[in-house]
Amino acid sequence: MIIIGEKINGFIPQTLAAIEAKDESYIRAIATSQALSHADYLDICAGVAPELERETMEWLIGLVQDETDTPLCLDSSDVELLLAMMQLVKKPGLLNSVSLEIVDTATGATKCDVVYPAIADTQWGVVALTCDNNGIPDDPQIKCEIACKMIEQAQAAGIAPERIYIDPLVTTLATKQDSLVNFTEGIRLIRQQYPTVHFTSGLSNISYGMPFRKAINMQFLSLAMAAGMDSAIMDPTSPDMQATLHATVALLGNDDFCMEYLTAYREGLFEKK
Amino acid sequence: MIIIGEKINGFIPQTLAAIEAKDESYIRAIATSQALSHADYLDICAGVAPELERETMEWLIGLVQDETDTPLCLDSSDVELLLAMMQLVKKPGLLNSVSLEIVDTATGATKCDVVYPAIADTQWGVVALTCDNNGIPDDPQIKCEIACKMIEQAQAAGIAPERIYIDPLVTTLATKQDSLVNFTEGIRLIRQQYPTVHFTSGLSNISYGMPFRKAINMQFLSLAMAAGMDSAIMDPTSPDMQATLHATVALLGNDDFCMEYLTAYREGLFEKK
Repeated sequence: MIIIGEKINGFIPQTLAAIEAKDESYIRAIATSQALSHADYLDICAGVAPELERETMEWLIGLVQDETDTPLCLDSSDVELLLAMMQLVKKPGLLNSVSLEIVDTATGATKCDVVYPAIADTQWGVVALTCDNNGIPDDPQIKCEIACKMIEQAQAAGIAPERIYIDPLVTTLATKQDSLVNFTEGIRLIRQQYPTVHFTSGLSNISYGMPFRKAINMQFLSLAMAAGMDSAIMDPTSPDMQATLHATVALLGNDDFCMEYLTAYREGLFEKK
Repeated sequence: MIIIGEKINGFIPQTLAAIEAKDESYIRAIATSQALSHADYLDICAGVAPELERETMEWLIGLVQDETDTPLCLDSSDVELLLAMMQLVKKPGLLNSVSLEIVDTATGATKCDVVYPAIADTQWGVVALTCDNNGIPDDPQIKCEIACKMIEQAQAAGIAPERIYIDPLVTTLATKQDSLVNFTEGIRLIRQQYPTVHFTSGLSNISYGMPFRKAINMQFLSLAMAAGMDSAIMDPTSPDMQATLHATVALLGNDDFCMEYLTAYREGLFEKK
């Protein structure tokens, strides 16, 4: 499992408060704790007004790179900003995200058109959302078509499927009973055509509006992993999520002699600090 | 999900202590708490020396039936005892268990041969273990063959597949990395031939010998449910298991408007009492 640590994100109230207060020590602390909890990437999302996004991203990137060597996952809906921020980053990470949304109405260029040429000759990976100007499709077949188009276009630009993290955009369970079923069907269809592409998801979206969200987030992680999701945007410092993740890896038969599970347990990842 | 409450079982140290001390109030308390936590059946297993088993079962059955109306799941490796105890029970429940083990070497009669005629004209169900005199097969194909033989024999005796709870006997994850994969493959093969048969399992077997067992038990429940397990022998008073169960039912698309999840949450089933 490839873990993208979700905590450095201005859409999380506590992180936003730290950003607004320029609280360096809080940002450093959540960078370190996620790195120590084996995040493979640290998501960096400003979550502030557009006119403040660039300076906030710069500040966050500077702080986090000063604190840890964990690669970054730059997260913004502004793809031009992502490309500018890439220049500040010491080692290849992920860009979050592209899609088939058109960003230049004059030329019809999509986010993929903007980002792919800039990362083609690098080792950066990219999160690709299965949506376009029509929004998020409900039909897994259309999600698959969008994903395949993005992967084909990446390949044409010299970017292998292994560098692409498809996010099939799970809907909220409270409003759509088939959220998981739809999500896993999307994975199945895409995986048939591109067996080496990665799949990721922000875990907490599915439980929006429900009580006791952690139960739904935990089982979504587990059931989505069983369906082939091999990455997640999640809180690696959560004992519940770590225990769920490692138990699921072991149960799916991907942990020789349960060594990873036992190591994580001994490191205390399953217990509240 | 059909929940078989596991707590009235002398193989659980605290329950054995209550049995040995003839502590009626403890047995009554775990009967009531499991019933209030929506157990569909209450397992009754003496877990004592063979010469004490009959009187212990009688005592437990009397107490539990006096306390609650929840149907019982009579649990013993002695099928003659199961049939005798059935006579004491007020309403149809489950017998736990039969298998293709031979119990009469003179005639070659198996546990199925003994039990089926006695329950044919009743509404009792039966847990059927996928094993025979060769022990527990490792190969899911052989598990399937044993299960199908038991189901066919039941049908010939007038017992429909809906009354049979196949237990594909999950192995311990600590010693077999493919425990879950083997278990779910067994379900898949059997389900192909008998779509209406039930599947059940004692949840905690899989985590034997591992630390932080609850994480493995929770994810086993979830992943096995995704594979078609529709019953479990479990502790319904455990908030972790209840939250896992209800979140999984909802995620699998089997809870209209999440009403069962929301009701269970409001009833406090997800929180420690």
